[in-house]
Formats: sequence, C-alpha cells, structure tokens
Amino acid sequence: MTDDFEDHCWKDVIPPETLEVYSCYRRKTFIGPNPALLAIDLYEVVYRGGALEPHLLAKTHPNSCGRYAHEAIEPTRQLFAAGRAAGLRIFYSTGDTRDASKPNFVTATKRVRPPVDPSDYAIRPEFKPQPGDVVITKQRASVFYGTPLLAHLTQLGIQTLIVCGESTSGCVRATAVDAYSNGFHVVLVEECCFDRSPLSHKVNLFDMHHKYTDVMHLSDVVTHLKTVQPAVRKAG
Amino acid sequence: MTDDFEDHCWKDVIPPETLEVYSCYRRKTFIGPNPALLAIDLYEVVYRGGALEPHLLAKTHPNSCGRYAHEAIEPTRQLFAAGRAAGLRIFYSTGDTRDASKPNFVTATKRVRPPVDPSDYAIRPEFKPQPGDVVITKQRASVFYGTPLLAHLTQLGIQTLIVCGESTSGCVRATAVDAYSNGFHVVLVEECCFDRSPLSHKVNLFDMHHKYTDVMHLSDVVTHLKTVQPAVRKAG
Amino acid sequence: MTDDFEDHCWKDVIPPETLEVYSCYRRKTFIGPNPALLAIDLYEVVYRGGALEPHLLAKTHPNSCGRYAHEAIEPTRQLFAAGRAAGLRIFYSTGDTRDASKPNFVTATKRVRPPVDPSDYAIRPEFKPQPGDVVITKQRASVFYGTPLLAHLTQLGIQTLIVCGESTSGCVRATAVDAYSNGFHVVLVEECCFDRSPLSHKVNLFDMHHKYTDVMHLSDVVTHLKTVQPAVRKAG
Amino acid sequence: MTDDFEDHCWKDVIPPETLEVYSCYRRKTFIGPNPALLAIDLYEVVYRGGALEPHLLAKTHPNSCGRYAHEAIEPTRQLFAAGRAAGLRIFYSTGDTRDASKPNFVTATKRVRPPVDPSDYAIRPEFKPQPGDVVITKQRASVFYGTPLLAHLTQLGIQTLIVCGESTSGCVRATAVDAYSNGFHVVLVEECCFDRSPLSHKVNLFDMHHKYTDVMHLSDVVTHLKTVQPAVRKAG
Repeated sequence: MTDDFEDHCWKDVIPPETLEVYSCYRRKTFIGPNPALLAIDLYEVVYRGGALEPHLLAKTHPNSCGRYAHEAIEPTRQLFAAGRAAGLRIFYSTGDTRDASKPNFVTATKRVRPPVDPSDYAIRPEFKPQPGDVVITKQRASVFYGTPLLAHLTQLGIQTLIVCGESTSGCVRATAVDAYSNGFHVVLVEECCFDRSPLSHKVNLFDMHHKYTDVMHLSDVVTHLKTVQPAVRKAG
Repeated sequence: MTDDFEDHCWKDVIPPETLEVYSCYRRKTFIGPNPALLAIDLYEVVYRGGALEPHLLAKTHPNSCGRYAHEAIEPTRQLFAAGRAAGLRIFYSTGDTRDASKPNFVTATKRVRPPVDPSDYAIRPEFKPQPGDVVITKQRASVFYGTPLLAHLTQLGIQTLIVCGESTSGCVRATAVDAYSNGFHVVLVEECCFDRSPLSHKVNLFDMHHKYTDVMHLSDVVTHLKTVQPAVRKAG
Repeated sequence: MTDDFEDHCWKDVIPPETLEVYSCYRRKTFIGPNPALLAIDLYEVVYRGGALEPHLLAKTHPNSCGRYAHEAIEPTRQLFAAGRAAGLRIFYSTGDTRDASKPNFVTATKRVRPPVDPSDYAIRPEFKPQPGDVVITKQRASVFYGTPLLAHLTQLGIQTLIVCGESTSGCVRATAVDAYSNGFHVVLVEECCFDRSPLSHKVNLFDMHHKYTDVMHLSDVVTHLKTVQPAVRKAG
Repeated sequence: MTDDFEDHCWKDVIPPETLEVYSCYRRKTFIGPNPALLAIDLYEVVYRGGALEPHLLAKTHPNSCGRYAHEAIEPTRQLFAAGRAAGLRIFYSTGDTRDASKPNFVTATKRVRPPVDPSDYAIRPEFKPQPGDVVITKQRASVFYGTPLLAHLTQLGIQTLIVCGESTSGCVRATAVDAYSNGFHVVLVEECCFDRSPLSHKVNLFDMHHKYTDVMHLSDVVTHLKTVQPAVRKAG
C-alpha cells in the first residue's frame, strides 16, 4: 500500500523472508482522532552515567539506557513542543515509590532487585510536567495496569495515544499492547522510544508495527500535530 | 438450610414476600481458604463531628457517618485484633490525594465536590497500619479499580477477603462486587461495616448477602479466626 | 439546584433525614456526549410465569421478575425506538451458556444453582438484536467484567451509556458502577430498570443517583434523544 | 547464579554486550506453587499448509506458522501428557468467532483482515480439550483481556501458569506480561512456543525471560511436574 511501511530502524535486522511473511500487514499509517501524548518512564535513573554504551554502565547504573536515552532527548523535546502547541493532554508515567504501597517481600521471580531511591523516579527536567498534566505512578510495566489511566482517557474522550519513552521492549511495549487491546489507536514515535538493547528495540518496534500500532517518524508526527484540534470533553 | 441465614440487621426492613423470593439463596455461610483482611476507607473524615446522627452533621461534615462510624470502632478493633493474632495479611484503602494524579477538572456528573484536605484521608489511629501492612490509594469506589490490589492478592495466594469499613452502600459494595467477580470468597463483617443511611446499609447488606458475599456476625468471624492458619506464599 | 432531583420512585421509602444527608449531591442531570444504549439481561428467564408478583413465582421461576419485568416492556420499547431513531449504537448483555467456558464445579459461595438452559438466555423478542448490534456474553454481574465491552466503547468513541434492564440491584448496579469507574457518564432510565424486590429497586436507584449516575425519567431521555447526533468514529 | 540462565534459543542472536547489560537479572528459574497449564491459540489455522517455511505459505496461509507449528507438536504433546498426569487444570484459548460479539466495522489500524472461518479456530486434535478443561474465547492478543480467565484462576487458587502455544511475539507475550502483572509466576516452555518469525521468537523469549517470566526447557518442566500436587480449591 505504501513503500514507506518498512522504512524504519529494523531494516538491518529483519530478514527478507520475515518481511514476506508480514507483507499482508501493509497499510497506511495515521494519527487517529482525539489524540493525547503519553510519555513513559522518562525518569532520571535511565539517564544516569551519561551518554555511554549501556554495557559500560551495567555495573554502576544497571537501569541506565546510556547513549540511547541521551540521543532521544532532543527528538522528545520536539515531540513535547509539538504536542503542547496542539493543546494535547499530556500523561506521564513513573514508578510508584510510596511506602506501604505493596507487600514488601513479594516478587514474581527470584530476581534480586536493588533498593529504590525516590529521586531515581523524578521526571527528567527537559520534560518537566506542567500544571494540568497528569503523572501516573505504577508498579508494573504497563501504564494501564493497576492505575486509573483508562478512566481519565475515557472521561476526556481520548481515542488515540501518541507514545514515547522507554524501554521499547519493556514498559513501552506493555503499555502499547494494553492501549491497543483497550481500543485506542496507538502511534509510537520511533526516534522518541529507546532501550538498553538495540536488537530488542528494533524487533519490538517491528512486532508492534505489524500487530498493534503505527510506528511513525517524528517528522511525520510533528507535521500532523500542526493540524490537530485538541480533544475536549463537552459538558453535555 | 439454616435458620440463621436471615438473622441480620435487615430483618426490620425486608418484607416477607421478598424473603420468599430470595429463599432459594439460603446456604451455609463460611470463611474460605487463605483469608486476608481488607479495611475500606477507615479515614478521619468519616468520623468528623463525633457520634451524632449523620443528618445533624450534613452541613458541617457532609462525608461523616457520625454515630454509625463511632459505633463501629470497638467491633472493628476486635476484628483487627483477631486478624493480627491469626497472622492475616492486612490491606487498607484510602483516597488518592496526590497532586497531578488526575485531570483536575473532569468529573462524571455535575455534582460539586469540596476541595480535598490530605489529613482527611489519614487512617483513624485505632486502626493504624503496621509495618508490612499495605495501604492502597484509590480514586474510585472499588479498591480494585485502578489499583494493583489484585496483583498483590494473587502473589500472596489470597482466596478469601474479610471486609470491613465504609460506606456499606458505596466503597464496601463496589469492592465486594469486584472481589466476587474476580473469584474471591468475600465475608462482610456486619458490625464492622457502616453507612450514613441506615436503610441503604441494611438493603445493601441484604443484596450482597444473597448475590455475592457471606454477611457474618463479628462473633462468628472472630471464633473462626482462632482456627485459621495464615496464607503464606511458598517459594516453590 | 433543581426541585426534581429527588422526584423518583424512591420517594416513599427514603426518610427525610437521609435526604438531608444527601442534599449536597443535588445537581442538574443530563445526557453526556457520544451516547450508546446498553440493555442489560433482557432475556427470557426473567419474564417467565407472566406478570405476577415475583414471590408467587419463587417456586416455579425463581429468576423471574414477574410483573416488574412485564411492566417495563412498553417503556423499554419506547426507549429502543428513540435510541434507534437517533442512530445510537446498541449493546446487549446476556448470560454465557457456552460449554467449557468455565471450570464446572467452582462457585464463590455454597449457594445451589439450577442447571442452565440456553433458551433462558435468548433476548426477549420485543427487543431483538438487529444487524450491527453487539451482544456481550458474560459470567458475572457487570457487563464490563471479563468481556471486551470497554474496548468496543473506546473504539467507537462512546462517552455516555444510557442503561436499561435488570436487575436494578444486581447486573444493572454492578455495570453502572463499573461504567462510572471507567469514566463514562451513566444515565439510568428509571421506568426501564426492574427488579424482583421493589425495595431493593428503589434503594439501589437512590444509591446510584447520588453516587455514580443520573437516574432520569423515560420521557426526559426520549425528548433528549431527538436532539442527539450519533457517535461515529472518524477514520483519521 | 547459574550458568544455564542464558542457555536458550536466543544464544545465536543476542550480542555479548547485551548479555552484559542483562547480567543483573540472573537468577534460578523455578515452577511456582499451584500451577495450571495454559495453552495459547493451538488452533487449526496456524498449522495450515504443512511443515513448510512460513514465507512459502504467506500467500495461501498468511496466519500459518508452518514448520515451527509442526515442530512444536511433539514437545507440546509431552507437556500435555505431563500436565494431565500431574492433575493440572488445563486452560486453552482460541479466537472468538461468535456472531454479534463485536462491532463489525471497527478496527484499530487500517490493516485489512480476511473473513473468519470458525473451523480455523478449532483446537488441533492432538491437544483436544477434555471434559473439565476450560476453553477461553478472546478478541485480543492476551488471554486475560476481555475474558473471565483471572476469576477462574483465583477461584481455583492457581498461582503459577505454565504456558505454551503461539505466537511467541503475539498472544504468548501479551498473555505472559498480563499474567506477570497480575501476580502469577509464569513459566514459558521454550520448545512448546512458536512463531512465524525465528528472530521475533528468540528476542521475545529473551525479553520475557529477563523481565517477566522463567523460560524453561521442556525436559526440566516435565521432570518438575512429576513432583507436583494439583491445586484444588478446598471447600472451606
């Protein structure tokens, strides 16, 4: 339907046989009606240690996305600027660090986790929430799980989510799948999603683009947002 | 099946024809396996103004349950004591008063709501949470809606919820229905649930007893808890 | 705000002290944007035995609402006619009678249930689903629990649910509370909701009107629907 | 913690730098308490066209997993045999093909979908459901979304899900993430999960193993199941 459908960052890792298998998914991507911006886990801990390769930070900052986090800062600023100019509602997520919010010794696997420092989960200053923005705290990967996000979106008449943040293979994917399941049109902004693993980043974007979402380039999203009218719930 | 099935506070308001309609629901009540205690919205604002009739407090403390809140304090202390002695996990709920946790002008009806004072939502000192207890903050009536409660219960292997708190016709009912829907056995402790409206209290307990839950007297619950082994998730 | 706010079927059972407690909930009722019609459990079994008092049917047809079901037929026909004329999307619910849809011996209480006959759960002919209507099958009281209803509503941009059906104190209430929690504006059409117990019917409508929904008279809903434009999801 | 932690099918595609980044996730895998078997989408359409490479079937059978589906038959038979011998509850999922189960023209992206043939969604005879097994029909990728699965698991006291089926990068992943979010311990049986794309299969198993689940070999799961006592809900 369009030659651009596979013109994305996964081009160098997906073999031609797989593209052939997925050829029936080709379609025109778009931004649906009544969009909001959803910024996933843009908190301090993923920027720690600076713009290095993540494996060089694995010992000191095991949750840092290093250079991938830092390279996404400028595109993400542009996305926020375009979203705010279009009057979009902006939702953030971050970790729930509140005392007593969960049973303290229970985990689903035997993985050992480091103690939590609340400052790790402050939103990066470049994307500081403004009055009227909503910040969802969560305990799981998906911003929908165990949170009232869905209720807010319904009340506001939101039907489309423009998604950025990290990690592509973790919270972004879990959230995007839930958003799709719940009936939203989901747009993932390629240059504004990031991950510690380039291969997981690419394969997850490929998976989501074919199954659940429209992966779009920042430039196309910004161009579109110049034409958008914000979703406002009418008072009936 | 048992003559005690309808021996509850609703006796003076439910007409005999309705009891006849519901006679097919008679069964033996019980406390199921792996119980936890769930204390709903035992926060300061519902005790405000003292042990008066609620309508005398309507102007000054519109959310107070007055005498009904105060009369439930002593039975609820006994329930907590029995639950802690049996080693039960204890979950509380209270209101989410965090800034930025929701879009600030959106409501589902045109009802005018007063501004929120965080101290209103502190748990009453008689039932103060202890280390290891979990306090769920919520934005809706049901403690399950928009919260991770269900995940915690599953991880802990909880199958039964012993419920107390307020209001019977509001957050208790919404939570009990959700707990039932999610597959839990639910026990409502009659003397430890309260409401601003005696009629709503009685009719809601009647409805829930026949459709979703086992309404039991405090004395029967306390007696049972002396025999309970706490639910502990085994490490596999 | 309006003198009509308490002019409903509960007038003869709610004492003045309780109306005083709830006076702060007074507001103007309305039908919100992008409405759909949700018809709950209008299936054959609740009409069985004819228009008798339910307690006279308790032995032969324990799930029948008798005269209350039959008295609601004509108003519900009018509601459907008005909804279809306005181009509203129509959703129905009924019981899930599919083999293998649940573990066969598991129940939450010890209540004994009769075997299921699929014809019991056919929608009453007066309200027969038309092509394009959606029929949700469910296992629990709320039409939202364990069903994809929410996804459909989001995809269609629905923000308001106009609700009719039965029972007021069972599936209607469970559904209305879930709809409210999920961010919808909910209108309950008084004359089109019914129950086996008149007291439960009245008290549940009272509870919901003050806490979660706008209970409106059929005539007001029909008048409003003449002005409604149907919700259609734009293709972006 | 164990040298076997990365001894899985992804070894040939994950670069050493990424393994270094994820080294902090190393832990001992295990099968948790009260397990059930969950078999995802083992329906006819994914076996169509025989044991060929999927790209050779893309035109005639675009949903077939070809050789990957057929290679998983024998290991999956062994898994079912071990699960039944251990008395595990068995849950299946398949597509919801019921008329009127959804609004017929609504989709989240502009992808063109072929018409549905109900026989496509019959469970493959090798794994035919037995009396007492539960078959969940679903409209979305995750078996949890829009279904009552969670309620059944809670009622039965299930805390662990042993998962097989397809596709690894689609319904298996969406389900595994939801199961993890809901508090279950999840075991993915490597040889019994399959996908049309080998790269997506490997990367998704890698992602899930590190973030949400324990990916285990069939032989280890079968050995373990010989020691398992079935989860039975006690009657209280």
